[in-house]
Amino acid sequence: MFNFVRTHDCGILRKKDIGSSVTLSGWVHRRRDHGGLVFIDLRDRYGLTQLVFNPKINPACHLLSEKLRSEWVISVQGKVIQRTPGMENPKLATGEIEVDVFEMEILSTAKTPPFSICDDSIEVHEELRLKYRYLDIRRGDVAHKLTVRHQAMLATRNYLSQEGFIEISTPILGKSTPEGARDYLVPSRVHPGNFYALPQSPQIFKQLLMVAGMDRYFQIAQCFRDEDLRADRQPEFTQIDLEMSFATPEILIAIIERLVKKLFRECCQLEISTPFPTLSHAVCMEKYGCDRPDMRFEMPLYTLDDIAKDSTFAVFLEQLKEGGIVKGLCVKGGADMTRKSIEGYTEFVGRFGIQGLAWMKMQDNALNSNIVKFFAPEVQQRLIERMHIENGDLIFMVADLKPRTNQALDHLRRKIARDRNLIPADSYQFVWVRDFPLFSWNAEEQRLESEHHPFTSPHPEDLALMETDPLSMRSSGYDLVLNGYEIGGGSQRIHNGELQQKIFEKLKLTPEELQKKFGFFIEALSYGTPPHLGMALGLDRLVMLLTGTENIRDVIAFPKTQKASDLMLECPSLVAKKQLNELKISVEEELEY
Amino acid sequence: MFNFVRTHDCGILRKKDIGSSVTLSGWVHRRRDHGGLVFIDLRDRYGLTQLVFNPKINPACHLLSEKLRSEWVISVQGKVIQRTPGMENPKLATGEIEVDVFEMEILSTAKTPPFSICDDSIEVHEELRLKYRYLDIRRGDVAHKLTVRHQAMLATRNYLSQEGFIEISTPILGKSTPEGARDYLVPSRVHPGNFYALPQSPQIFKQLLMVAGMDRYFQIAQCFRDEDLRADRQPEFTQIDLEMSFATPEILIAIIERLVKKLFRECCQLEISTPFPTLSHAVCMEKYGCDRPDMRFEMPLYTLDDIAKDSTFAVFLEQLKEGGIVKGLCVKGGADMTRKSIEGYTEFVGRFGIQGLAWMKMQDNALNSNIVKFFAPEVQQRLIERMHIENGDLIFMVADLKPRTNQALDHLRRKIARDRNLIPADSYQFVWVRDFPLFSWNAEEQRLESEHHPFTSPHPEDLALMETDPLSMRSSGYDLVLNGYEIGGGSQRIHNGELQQKIFEKLKLTPEELQKKFGFFIEALSYGTPPHLGMALGLDRLVMLLTGTENIRDVIAFPKTQKASDLMLECPSLVAKKQLNELKISVEEELEY
Repeated sequence: MFNFVRTHDCGILRKKDIGSSVTLSGWVHRRRDHGGLVFIDLRDRYGLTQLVFNPKINPACHLLSEKLRSEWVISVQGKVIQRTPGMENPKLATGEIEVDVFEMEILSTAKTPPFSICDDSIEVHEELRLKYRYLDIRRGDVAHKLTVRHQAMLATRNYLSQEGFIEISTPILGKSTPEGARDYLVPSRVHPGNFYALPQSPQIFKQLLMVAGMDRYFQIAQCFRDEDLRADRQPEFTQIDLEMSFATPEILIAIIERLVKKLFRECCQLEISTPFPTLSHAVCMEKYGCDRPDMRFEMPLYTLDDIAKDSTFAVFLEQLKEGGIVKGLCVKGGADMTRKSIEGYTEFVGRFGIQGLAWMKMQDNALNSNIVKFFAPEVQQRLIERMHIENGDLIFMVADLKPRTNQALDHLRRKIARDRNLIPADSYQFVWVRDFPLFSWNAEEQRLESEHHPFTSPHPEDLALMETDPLSMRSSGYDLVLNGYEIGGGSQRIHNGELQQKIFEKLKLTPEELQKKFGFFIEALSYGTPPHLGMALGLDRLVMLLTGTENIRDVIAFPKTQKASDLMLECPSLVAKKQLNELKISVEEELEY
Repeated sequence: MFNFVRTHDCGILRKKDIGSSVTLSGWVHRRRDHGGLVFIDLRDRYGLTQLVFNPKINPACHLLSEKLRSEWVISVQGKVIQRTPGMENPKLATGEIEVDVFEMEILSTAKTPPFSICDDSIEVHEELRLKYRYLDIRRGDVAHKLTVRHQAMLATRNYLSQEGFIEISTPILGKSTPEGARDYLVPSRVHPGNFYALPQSPQIFKQLLMVAGMDRYFQIAQCFRDEDLRADRQPEFTQIDLEMSFATPEILIAIIERLVKKLFRECCQLEISTPFPTLSHAVCMEKYGCDRPDMRFEMPLYTLDDIAKDSTFAVFLEQLKEGGIVKGLCVKGGADMTRKSIEGYTEFVGRFGIQGLAWMKMQDNALNSNIVKFFAPEVQQRLIERMHIENGDLIFMVADLKPRTNQALDHLRRKIARDRNLIPADSYQFVWVRDFPLFSWNAEEQRLESEHHPFTSPHPEDLALMETDPLSMRSSGYDLVLNGYEIGGGSQRIHNGELQQKIFEKLKLTPEELQKKFGFFIEALSYGTPPHLGMALGLDRLVMLLTGTENIRDVIAFPKTQKASDLMLECPSLVAKKQLNELKISVEEELEY
């Protein structure tokens, strides 16, 4: 048997190795025949090395090399030599040398791949890439992202361990909970008619581990949600999940900031400055229209209600009368926008249910627009001052109900920034969003609801508002936002039984409902619960940001499509009748798609 | 709000800290009232510290301390003082000091736990421990084992990463395969009537990652099998899973030995000597009757066919005539065994289908037994020499079909070793078992079957036997055995298309069967497959051995019972009709248990 064990990988040989005898193994990346010589670029995970087959050195081997085709796997023995002057390849780490081959073994041949492995300029349809994922990974791009993901996971584990956190695996076969997103169910064979559920998060387990006194827990946890998938979601996803006792949000936030700093340093050689800025939820909504602001560029939103009500613009006045608001943003230098471009943005906000997009341009020190006439000069002046409008700028204004206005302007702000290249490359702008509302109002059931979950602690300064104004109470929650994406969130939990009881009363939960929804968990909390808090960071999203991709499937080895299918395995799939019989379940005969 | 953030944990204060002001938080472990003073042992994950409440220091605080009950969570501020001479507790790391408390906050009260947390001498029924797992963990023993598990996982990851392995997560929602153990199924909502399966192992994925050129992969992987559980099995279990390309078993074995050495060093401060010995499968079966020999003690098995056939003992002669074998073992010093004890072992081998257990004692330089008369003196002499029988020894002999004889003697050997305390404590005896048979004979279907799976490579020296004597071919598989437990196994895989084809022919698989069983995988292997091999180590079993427990549930945070139930979550459980409707599945109305 030919000894295919490598002395070196394909990315490591340099000028200093000239003269060495080496064994290399890998894939035939490219083959070129030049004047009797055959050149092979040999590839492995680590790089490319040029092989030369010279008929004068080993005629049989040279003859065999002419048979080689793309993606065949070979092993060669040869000598490292300097490339002919002028033939060096500065783009290649091994570009100064080549290997003169004197022995070769073909380890396995290959059919012609369905797409080119060596030419990454060719765009391959994603469905084909997913079906042949093992070939897609060979092309290098996904392999690189998986390597960064590995580094990020390892760095996370080492860092959190140093901080005293213990990684504890929690069950995948868990219990279906009556709240939250849709569960994936697993029928039980031993207990027919009963089901396990795959966990949407380890939330209950990690809080129980605090009750259990484990003090600092973490886990890189697989989580599952059976939801109709948006482009950036997967049915199974990964969380960096942690929880700690006897600590405060400030302590946890500092730990997370050091973690993120470490990840960017070790995975991208980027220095992130800490501490990250903090914004209250209220300020975020006011200034950015959302709770996950993209801070890489300016262009804040301005509330214009007071100015709009002094205009004579009927659209604004009517919205204000009906309880709506007027908000706007100022596009610096935006006066160059064409009518067509403005119409495009009008159509864009229309997708969020906004009827019209008001605009004005500042040109020659005056506002111009089809609606300027409804604004008296002193009202215009107030607008100019409020929105810091300068010559050459353009403003957009929206009037509608508050949530819709904020949503539309948030998306408009992001879209304009992309369209006008306002987002600097390689910029990483983190922000903590805090002081979320504790409750929201369920108008239908005429009662308060928890914004997060009923175990989230109120902000300590707001406890006195419980009886007088619960809707203005803030929670102890915190989200971490990066470049406009929420990459994590968490909260201080309630550890005090009396406070917990008060919250349940506010939520008008009956003892029966409580028992049904949170029974065994409330029981667990009654045996001595430490103050505790935690956080979960989305690993997939974090690795997407670390590797600069917008496609979540690029950072997962074997991802699923938006229809939750694995195109390579061809699953989900039909199973044998015998399997269903054992589980005592049946599928409906007439399936409606 | 009282500041409950600790300056120190409960395990860290020493004599050198005397005089320091400290804040400690934790659980009330024990309370004692002594002559006006109240003493509290405060507990956290890190240890115990004695608190003193002195009415002269803070009367209100002292009064409050009298209300404290077991497992209440408190936070105290106080000063570290030396214990009264004579009152030191040498068993406690913090036993030289105590903390004079001047402020206290009760963070949460606790109901009386269903079992004592502080008294570990009380045996608690495992069902109760599992139902209140969060309290069971507080008792410390499971917490310690989870900590070792964490250390083992982290050490594994760091070591394999240093060796160039990349951790890659493979899907939990996979495809049901027609072979192997029973799958857990997950109904698909998007594709009604179709199912995912939870992976029994990442075998296919890791081989695909080699095809994908990832070169060195590992994963600490959750795996699932819906089997009726033996005592040491769980429906979800964890594997250290790895695969590598362009390497040989010798290279992989050295990597694993270094890993195991590191784990024992870092998790138990034990030095394991490497390389581990290797035994062939044939020698194992001959000498120990099994392929997972416990090497911590001697007492080998001896084949006695040639001696037995020269006896006149009808039982032996009859078995030999019918194709059976005669094997035995020698218990050093075993002549002290009582008739009752021998009867016990006879009953024991009976459980494995063995009709009788022949025995002889060597006393006063002569063999004594009810069957000695069937053995002529020179036949006895051959027995004495073969089995190295000395004065005071006892031998057992079994005659039956080979598999049954081996199985019974294997178990008998282990049982006698336990009963007679032949197994040294803290002994870790590793052995590699290699040269497994490649094929076995399926008498029913009159064809060869793969012993492992059809992608396992034959032993390179045995390729020539393919046409002449395939049943005597050895595979390139290897198992790692520790103290009689198989803790891992793997094999070199076939990378050569022609060899693979030959194996399929030997197995008499039709192209249709091939396609159905291994279709997409064979397709994947046809695009250039590197030589590759791999291994999986059972993490749960390894941690059991590292922490010295025989109970797999002790090394899992939230384990399931032998009925695959989680007694704490009370799952599997019934789910809402709506959930089943969405999945378009139904459960049988009349369930038969």
